[in-house]
Amino acid sequence: MRLFNQVAIVGVGLIGGSIGLGIKKRRLARQVIGISRHRKTINLAKRRGAIDAGFLDVSAIRQADLVILAAPVNTIIQIGVRISSLVKPGALVTDTGSTKRSVVEILGKALPNFVGAHPLSGSEKQGVASARDDLFCGSLCVLTPTAKTSRSALSIIRGLWVELGARVIYLTPAKHDRFISYTSHLPHIISFSLIHSVPRNSLYLASSGLKDTTRIAASPVGLWKDIFLTNSENILDALKYFSRSLTRIKHAIIKKDAKALERILNQARLKRKEIKP
Amino acid sequence: MRLFNQVAIVGVGLIGGSIGLGIKKRRLARQVIGISRHRKTINLAKRRGAIDAGFLDVSAIRQADLVILAAPVNTIIQIGVRISSLVKPGALVTDTGSTKRSVVEILGKALPNFVGAHPLSGSEKQGVASARDDLFCGSLCVLTPTAKTSRSALSIIRGLWVELGARVIYLTPAKHDRFISYTSHLPHIISFSLIHSVPRNSLYLASSGLKDTTRIAASPVGLWKDIFLTNSENILDALKYFSRSLTRIKHAIIKKDAKALERILNQARLKRKEIKP
Repeated sequence: MRLFNQVAIVGVGLIGGSIGLGIKKRRLARQVIGISRHRKTINLAKRRGAIDAGFLDVSAIRQADLVILAAPVNTIIQIGVRISSLVKPGALVTDTGSTKRSVVEILGKALPNFVGAHPLSGSEKQGVASARDDLFCGSLCVLTPTAKTSRSALSIIRGLWVELGARVIYLTPAKHDRFISYTSHLPHIISFSLIHSVPRNSLYLASSGLKDTTRIAASPVGLWKDIFLTNSENILDALKYFSRSLTRIKHAIIKKDAKALERILNQARLKRKEIKP
Repeated sequence: MRLFNQVAIVGVGLIGGSIGLGIKKRRLARQVIGISRHRKTINLAKRRGAIDAGFLDVSAIRQADLVILAAPVNTIIQIGVRISSLVKPGALVTDTGSTKRSVVEILGKALPNFVGAHPLSGSEKQGVASARDDLFCGSLCVLTPTAKTSRSALSIIRGLWVELGARVIYLTPAKHDRFISYTSHLPHIISFSLIHSVPRNSLYLASSGLKDTTRIAASPVGLWKDIFLTNSENILDALKYFSRSLTRIKHAIIKKDAKALERILNQARLKRKEIKP
């Protein structure tokens, strides 16, 4: 079902590339173009069939009726502002940024038909080489409309994500940033800190526990630096709760209080079992 | 290749059950018996073919030429002391406990042919229902001999683990407990703390990052309580290093110091990439 004439994807990495593959597989657009700073990325994205044509310059988006900004948050904001004078009248602009307050605040003003989006499908992998047309199947995509968001634009962007296989939910940008600070940003900070603190000379003993808890510490640094800095208040709040939980466990160990330790571990274990596989 | 006449496994859970399945598949013993406090476990272990016969009372180990204690650490110690007057002369005793200093110190005295062992093959799963005859294939098994350990006993226990598919390494009990406090105990404490601090109302947004970092928080509480309490000094040390790393990342976020943040995240990411898949 064709939803668009031309879609332009700015940033053809894991997420942008997977959107391109998904759109092309489902024939949702007549043409998909990609914009990247790297000729190599464009060539690979074309070879993989994620885009029909690629450009180094963002001004190539002039003819697109949908522009998707799929880059680290600060890059999304910079490029979004820059293309505000370039997009054709009526064109929709959306993004895939992992924090939404700053993106929606700035681009909601700069672009008349902007819809904030965050597909919860990231991974420690990166690049169009890892892109998959089914990356979003069965996963959540959060849209973050505000009072200013065009309802027709929102409905079209919702339709795109549904076609790509995602379950779409709506949250305000503020709620998104607060909730996701716990479910995504906090685990990433903890994972980076955890592997940072493990001595190199014990790494050869790593078993599945360490591997799984630190898998996401292999994530792209540029992306996560932007996330941590654009959602710092929520993340620092989340870290306070984390530290409180850690301190309770630590004190039970120091006091050799087996009962208290068992109680806290059980609370944690039961909560973990509430997460659907 | 038959290594033993009768093997007795005390505690027929994930680890004990997998040892039983592995021994029986490779015909390493004429008979495998299991000891459990629960009749249900014995029946399931028999149905799964992990043991030939099962008993509720630990005195059933009298005829065994190898006794394997596969239980939480404090139970290993209790039962090991209790069977010291029951094991037949010349019988070997080994264990699978996740901390080794207290186990080896106490059981090395109580039992003439004791060899401490720790297969690094645990998981958040538990019970003989999850046992697999190939659980140890390709994973590490740490043996922790001391000056007192019988060399022939050590060599036989080594042979058993090699037959079960493990790569065997030797560490002193003290080194084992220190190294493993970083690569296993620290990740578990962090994982329990992490899920403990995530508000219930955001759990529906959990994506793969949170799921992977908290998978091991679904681990058996009794097992981990014992580990944390029997290796508390090392774990508290490891927590200090973890807190230092976390504080460095937190301060870079508070100061909005993108350069420092990028540097620390990169150090973490590169170290993570040193771990073999």
